[in-house]
Amino acid sequence: MTLALDSAAQDLLFHAAHTANSFTDEPVTEEQMQAVYDLIKMAPTAFNQSPLRVVLVRSAEARERLVPHMAEGNQAKTAAAPLVAILAADNEFHEELPVLFPHFPQAKDVFFGERPVRERSAELNATLQAGYFLLGIRAAGLAAGPMTGFDHAGVQKEFLDDDHTPLMIVNIGKPGADAFYPRSPRLSFDQAVTTV
Amino acid sequence: MTLALDSAAQDLLFHAAHTANSFTDEPVTEEQMQAVYDLIKMAPTAFNQSPLRVVLVRSAEARERLVPHMAEGNQAKTAAAPLVAILAADNEFHEELPVLFPHFPQAKDVFFGERPVRERSAELNATLQAGYFLLGIRAAGLAAGPMTGFDHAGVQKEFLDDDHTPLMIVNIGKPGADAFYPRSPRLSFDQAVTTV
Repeated sequence: MTLALDSAAQDLLFHAAHTANSFTDEPVTEEQMQAVYDLIKMAPTAFNQSPLRVVLVRSAEARERLVPHMAEGNQAKTAAAPLVAILAADNEFHEELPVLFPHFPQAKDVFFGERPVRERSAELNATLQAGYFLLGIRAAGLAAGPMTGFDHAGVQKEFLDDDHTPLMIVNIGKPGADAFYPRSPRLSFDQAVTTV
Repeated sequence: MTLALDSAAQDLLFHAAHTANSFTDEPVTEEQMQAVYDLIKMAPTAFNQSPLRVVLVRSAEARERLVPHMAEGNQAKTAAAPLVAILAADNEFHEELPVLFPHFPQAKDVFFGERPVRERSAELNATLQAGYFLLGIRAAGLAAGPMTGFDHAGVQKEFLDDDHTPLMIVNIGKPGADAFYPRSPRLSFDQAVTTV
């Protein structure tokens, strides 16, 4: 028992979990997504900047607007998934810093006064939060199907604005028939980690 | 019970866990880091590209080389932490794709033949893996202290090479005295999530 995390949780989040490419019809509820968010919002970001913003694409009308922006190989599964989430970085996150980082409210201007600095920080930290989000979906007993194959400028124009940069789009639901590709190999510890 | 993840695991990874700024002297073992890696390597990346590379800074000599590159406010805690990890993106990850993505080995050239495309994909996916890594540290019953405040070019030159881009540096250990800042507020579900 080198890890403190119990083996059921290890399986749920990592070992037994698997990216899904098809889903059952079972809906993903607002209550489930709120529980996912309330879990993953606690994980760390720099200056607690919390730049991840999520657009849940629920209506048929919105789904119809989204699907044409997906890469061809991602269209059918995105059209059929019970729920689709657009994950984006808020490049104006610094407006929230006086509330989010109360022990140094000046951080808003001292560190993040310049837009290119904010964009870089927002992308890094929102992507960290995207990692938490994918594990949070699994924590709800659901499967995620994350995708970066879409027209980023098109999705930004259709669903976001100039201050919000799309990072990835995630299909969410219970895995359906033939949902999984075979498990691919991973790099070993010695391949990915060096010690100095 | 909206979440499938048990409440002990929720606390260990999210609710009770906290970024640490000081640590006890208890060492972090190679066995612990191997268990962390073998857990988090299973979480998803695009094309299973797995671009995260980790340099564990263990020796006193290497620590002395690292500390001057840290922002001033991060130097003392980085000098004192039981273990420090440099997380980096491998911009030449595509060389591993024929092994990592065996059902479409051509992905190496079809999707990732161009270096700027690889750099962008490596940064996004290694940052996702950095999120998994921070939760993996917590899964081992340890605390993480992630930092982006360091001279990135200096760390790259000292510990990496042109093909590896540093993303963040993480202090690792058991929390010490006064390890934590007060818990800061988080954005509510309605502030971070919209439904269309």
